[in-house]
Amino acid sequence: MEKIILDCDPGHDDAIAILLAAGNPNIDLLGITTVSGNHNVENTTRNALATCTAYGIKVPVAKGSPGPMIADQVLAVEIHGETGLDGPVLPPASFDLDPRHAVDFIIDTVMAHEPGTVTLVPVGPYTNIGLAVRKEPRIVERVKKVVAMGGAYTRGNITPAAEFNVYADAEAADVVFRAGWDVTMVGLDLTHQALATPDLQDRVRAVGGDIAQFILDIWTFIDTTHGGLLQIPYPAVHDACCVAAMIDPTVFTTEKADIRVETAGRWTKGMTVCNFEKMGGMRHFGGTAMEQTNFRHTVAMTLDQQKFCDLIVDALERLTRRKAQGPAGN
Amino acid sequence: MEKIILDCDPGHDDAIAILLAAGNPNIDLLGITTVSGNHNVENTTRNALATCTAYGIKVPVAKGSPGPMIADQVLAVEIHGETGLDGPVLPPASFDLDPRHAVDFIIDTVMAHEPGTVTLVPVGPYTNIGLAVRKEPRIVERVKKVVAMGGAYTRGNITPAAEFNVYADAEAADVVFRAGWDVTMVGLDLTHQALATPDLQDRVRAVGGDIAQFILDIWTFIDTTHGGLLQIPYPAVHDACCVAAMIDPTVFTTEKADIRVETAGRWTKGMTVCNFEKMGGMRHFGGTAMEQTNFRHTVAMTLDQQKFCDLIVDALERLTRRKAQGPAGN
Amino acid sequence: MEKIILDCDPGHDDAIAILLAAGNPNIDLLGITTVSGNHNVENTTRNALATCTAYGIKVPVAKGSPGPMIADQVLAVEIHGETGLDGPVLPPASFDLDPRHAVDFIIDTVMAHEPGTVTLVPVGPYTNIGLAVRKEPRIVERVKKVVAMGGAYTRGNITPAAEFNVYADAEAADVVFRAGWDVTMVGLDLTHQALATPDLQDRVRAVGGDIAQFILDIWTFIDTTHGGLLQIPYPAVHDACCVAAMIDPTVFTTEKADIRVETAGRWTKGMTVCNFEKMGGMRHFGGTAMEQTNFRHTVAMTLDQQKFCDLIVDALERLTRRKAQGPAGN
Amino acid sequence: MEKIILDCDPGHDDAIAILLAAGNPNIDLLGITTVSGNHNVENTTRNALATCTAYGIKVPVAKGSPGPMIADQVLAVEIHGETGLDGPVLPPASFDLDPRHAVDFIIDTVMAHEPGTVTLVPVGPYTNIGLAVRKEPRIVERVKKVVAMGGAYTRGNITPAAEFNVYADAEAADVVFRAGWDVTMVGLDLTHQALATPDLQDRVRAVGGDIAQFILDIWTFIDTTHGGLLQIPYPAVHDACCVAAMIDPTVFTTEKADIRVETAGRWTKGMTVCNFEKMGGMRHFGGTAMEQTNFRHTVAMTLDQQKFCDLIVDALERLTRRKAQGPAGN
Repeated sequence: MEKIILDCDPGHDDAIAILLAAGNPNIDLLGITTVSGNHNVENTTRNALATCTAYGIKVPVAKGSPGPMIADQVLAVEIHGETGLDGPVLPPASFDLDPRHAVDFIIDTVMAHEPGTVTLVPVGPYTNIGLAVRKEPRIVERVKKVVAMGGAYTRGNITPAAEFNVYADAEAADVVFRAGWDVTMVGLDLTHQALATPDLQDRVRAVGGDIAQFILDIWTFIDTTHGGLLQIPYPAVHDACCVAAMIDPTVFTTEKADIRVETAGRWTKGMTVCNFEKMGGMRHFGGTAMEQTNFRHTVAMTLDQQKFCDLIVDALERLTRRKAQGPAGN
Repeated sequence: MEKIILDCDPGHDDAIAILLAAGNPNIDLLGITTVSGNHNVENTTRNALATCTAYGIKVPVAKGSPGPMIADQVLAVEIHGETGLDGPVLPPASFDLDPRHAVDFIIDTVMAHEPGTVTLVPVGPYTNIGLAVRKEPRIVERVKKVVAMGGAYTRGNITPAAEFNVYADAEAADVVFRAGWDVTMVGLDLTHQALATPDLQDRVRAVGGDIAQFILDIWTFIDTTHGGLLQIPYPAVHDACCVAAMIDPTVFTTEKADIRVETAGRWTKGMTVCNFEKMGGMRHFGGTAMEQTNFRHTVAMTLDQQKFCDLIVDALERLTRRKAQGPAGN
Repeated sequence: MEKIILDCDPGHDDAIAILLAAGNPNIDLLGITTVSGNHNVENTTRNALATCTAYGIKVPVAKGSPGPMIADQVLAVEIHGETGLDGPVLPPASFDLDPRHAVDFIIDTVMAHEPGTVTLVPVGPYTNIGLAVRKEPRIVERVKKVVAMGGAYTRGNITPAAEFNVYADAEAADVVFRAGWDVTMVGLDLTHQALATPDLQDRVRAVGGDIAQFILDIWTFIDTTHGGLLQIPYPAVHDACCVAAMIDPTVFTTEKADIRVETAGRWTKGMTVCNFEKMGGMRHFGGTAMEQTNFRHTVAMTLDQQKFCDLIVDALERLTRRKAQGPAGN
Repeated sequence: MEKIILDCDPGHDDAIAILLAAGNPNIDLLGITTVSGNHNVENTTRNALATCTAYGIKVPVAKGSPGPMIADQVLAVEIHGETGLDGPVLPPASFDLDPRHAVDFIIDTVMAHEPGTVTLVPVGPYTNIGLAVRKEPRIVERVKKVVAMGGAYTRGNITPAAEFNVYADAEAADVVFRAGWDVTMVGLDLTHQALATPDLQDRVRAVGGDIAQFILDIWTFIDTTHGGLLQIPYPAVHDACCVAAMIDPTVFTTEKADIRVETAGRWTKGMTVCNFEKMGGMRHFGGTAMEQTNFRHTVAMTLDQQKFCDLIVDALERLTRRKAQGPAGN
């Protein structure tokens, strides 16, 4: 069982990440923390609670940061709609938030568990994680690792150079990548391989039930609303890739790299500059001498699409069965 | 006939670009200007003269800038060796340099020809072009266009973000891309498709003669010296791609984009940030409102490798025949 | 009575600020929060507790951030010595820290009091304040104002352009100056007028007792250790200037300005760039059009040295009397 | 006799610098080169020629750069008016420009004289000097020194941090300060001591004649047009300070410093950051280790106002006498 805290901003693919984490028996979902990103933190928190309410997911949900650590706020309303999760219809949330701020929930939870047992899985802007590191630096040594959706080693999606999660709080991302812990970057190069293809959509449809319908509604919204704007043929299931890797690390291949977040560029703010070890490192790298380069980050490279789809469908089936079995199912 | 000035820093692939420009009957090579880049300008100038001497190429050669417009000098000695063209053996240069500085040669030549008839083809750092624009801004309206080797829209080759020519004089590149003229960026994404494959090497070998041997020596040097360091399986024939496009514009496909050179980044200095029109432009772009974005640059996308190889072999055959016919051949 | 939270990093002049706040009857010192800066937060916290212990000051002390919000840590060990308060000898601390993190102490205290009644007085790096704003943005509207020691409108003291408190956490300072509250910058231009002149030292000596001796020891340490390095003839009493202004706003004159913290410069990181309203604003200002400039910050300009010295001596006399009267004195 | 090239953008105080250089017998004015700055280069060139025409000054005038090396153009039209020298009435220019570009005039002249004999005196943006260094780096070793009006070590005049000449071409200034030659920065801190006080104006008026009237008209224009905007009570005679120091080095005191031009800042672009040797250097300086700091620049500190005024009046008297003596006078 992998203990994780899912830090998210639902958001469409975030919701699928919640379902995967809640539905897979190898994941111990210690809690969900929310952050502003795809929409403001009021909406992302409501969407997290409503998703949990609708599908019988009983975990603590703690509301987090309303904006970036330093920069001005950037939302992704044009992608996720006015509610942050337009498309599907969700019930009102029927349970209460954890009373703590997400930053304190993260710190308390990490410090309350054995060292090296809790993994942080941020799939929105990394504001809560950055603030937690600064408020309680001891979490850096105590977590098992960080598996983060965000960044890219070729091209971005909100600017030519930057991916949304990192761009939206570049300074927080800088804190996260510079902290001494083990970080895996699950960036666009990987998540653009995790597509809701017609085949995956058919498998989800075959499961049936309202959770399957929820997922299909998410994909339909993304596809019809802004499919044409993106560089990919089908909706990407970005955030769930991180959860999938916690269930089965072989779901994608990885490479070691030295990753730096650009916080100073005129046109490149929020870019994750990846210097790969397998190329021997680049000749020049921001004035960093080669001996100071440390290829200590991990970058997700190639997705095993079959495994990924199987994990999604498996979690959906389990949640659907559990929901049918009623409230005792958790 | 396309009139061009080839501004280069030979450099191995630069030498092949010279041969292609000199050997193709549709190119009127008005002159060669040199710049520091692959090596210092003393060496790149000697290499240009020696290449011309060896293979009967009689065009003015003007020596240019010994270093970047603003930044400190960066050379590529580890790629091109101690002479800047290690590997092949060249004769001493047997003719004199043009007495003018490259910057003045460029200005004089552009202003002396009819408007809209001369194309600048910079395939080293763009220092000479940048200085010429600043010394005589009227060349911007008077040239036909600029077809420049450099940049990348995914990843670089000297840093993860930057390609060598642009990185080596990012401010000059900024001047070139911001000037009002028509610029085509022939970047790594294109030139990494222009490889000296075994098939192309066989075709060159089949032509025979010392020019073919010169080309083969260039590729052998690159392959044996640093093949392992690069991201590509065979030596790239970067610079010749620009000349090829002057001979036959269909040698590669293009897309329109708004290209900005990053001059301020901590990790991204010298990156060519390409905002493609076909994606509708990115949502955020350095604070530039969409209405201010102007997709006026051209980016080389996909190479027709067959056409490219045919052009290389054709020029080689012509130069070889011409050399066999003796000094009257020009 | 002005309610204040003194956020500090004692630090020599910080200790005098504590004494002034504790000794003046018009200040209601709600608590002291500590931060890394002059030394690490372990030492600055111990120094705050020990100062309070030694001189009968009974207020909550909450330990805060061990390092900056984003940047790498910079301490001022070369100024304040190995303990952060070298020179005077202090007793061990005899009372307990508040159990809360300084960030939570600040948030709780501000939210627990009536709106517009609590003033934040940061006299070290602004890390705690910046984190508090990001964790609970509602404090921005709820505080009365912020009176901050730091910055300069001419020259710095840790770099030619930057003052230590702002340089040590430039991003936090950026958050503080961009937040919508009323901020008064008490920078070096002001505090270099607040010197421990021989006359002031004589007046302190005349009061007698161990608190006077403590203050004299502080000045002697600063003077003998690094007097020669600074641009001023006597030790500056920087931090107490902010407290003095809370007691008597006429202790210095002010001007309105638009203050921006430079976070991107190569040589100017941490500079407080002050665009004064009285000059009509400068013609150029970071690309900010004049209509977007808002002269909403306040800058301390000219100190009334007599008033300032009177306040220091008065507080010293009160504390000395109170201590003589024994534990019931608070 | 000090041989100088005066590189200027007249501009009101530039015109007085021309008069001082032309009128003092210890200055051998080898030529005047023009640049865009106070106004565009068409106007600054016309103003230089017209000033020389009107007052019998027979030196080569070479027209230079129409805009900065890299950045977008910034003019000072709001200070110097629509002609760049509004106020005085000048005759049409009656002699021809030197046929060379200012950059080539500078290079040719420096290389044609003995090493160590020619001083460059740029009093506008340093574009021509920067381009000359890049086109012919050998001038760096060959000049005697550079005495440049521009910069400030406290506050600027076009932004709070930057002085106009350096701001208008920050990259050129970066080239000039980083080149290995001896540079004296005559910045605002010095030139704001060189004021056209009522006393100086009376002395000029007492000389009488049209040149005196020209100078008085310049000061009247500056005073009436924008006196209120500036931080000083009388018009500053900025540019002439550099020429004065060539005549008599004791006209101001100096300090050694390491000067860096900020080219990357968001709010500080074009600032001259001065790290003074007398303070032992600042503790932090852009990541530059102390052992790499080289206090090789010279900064003008305190003006001998009496000497300065005497030099101005003396030159005026000589020019007035010479003009009265007619065309044979040169």
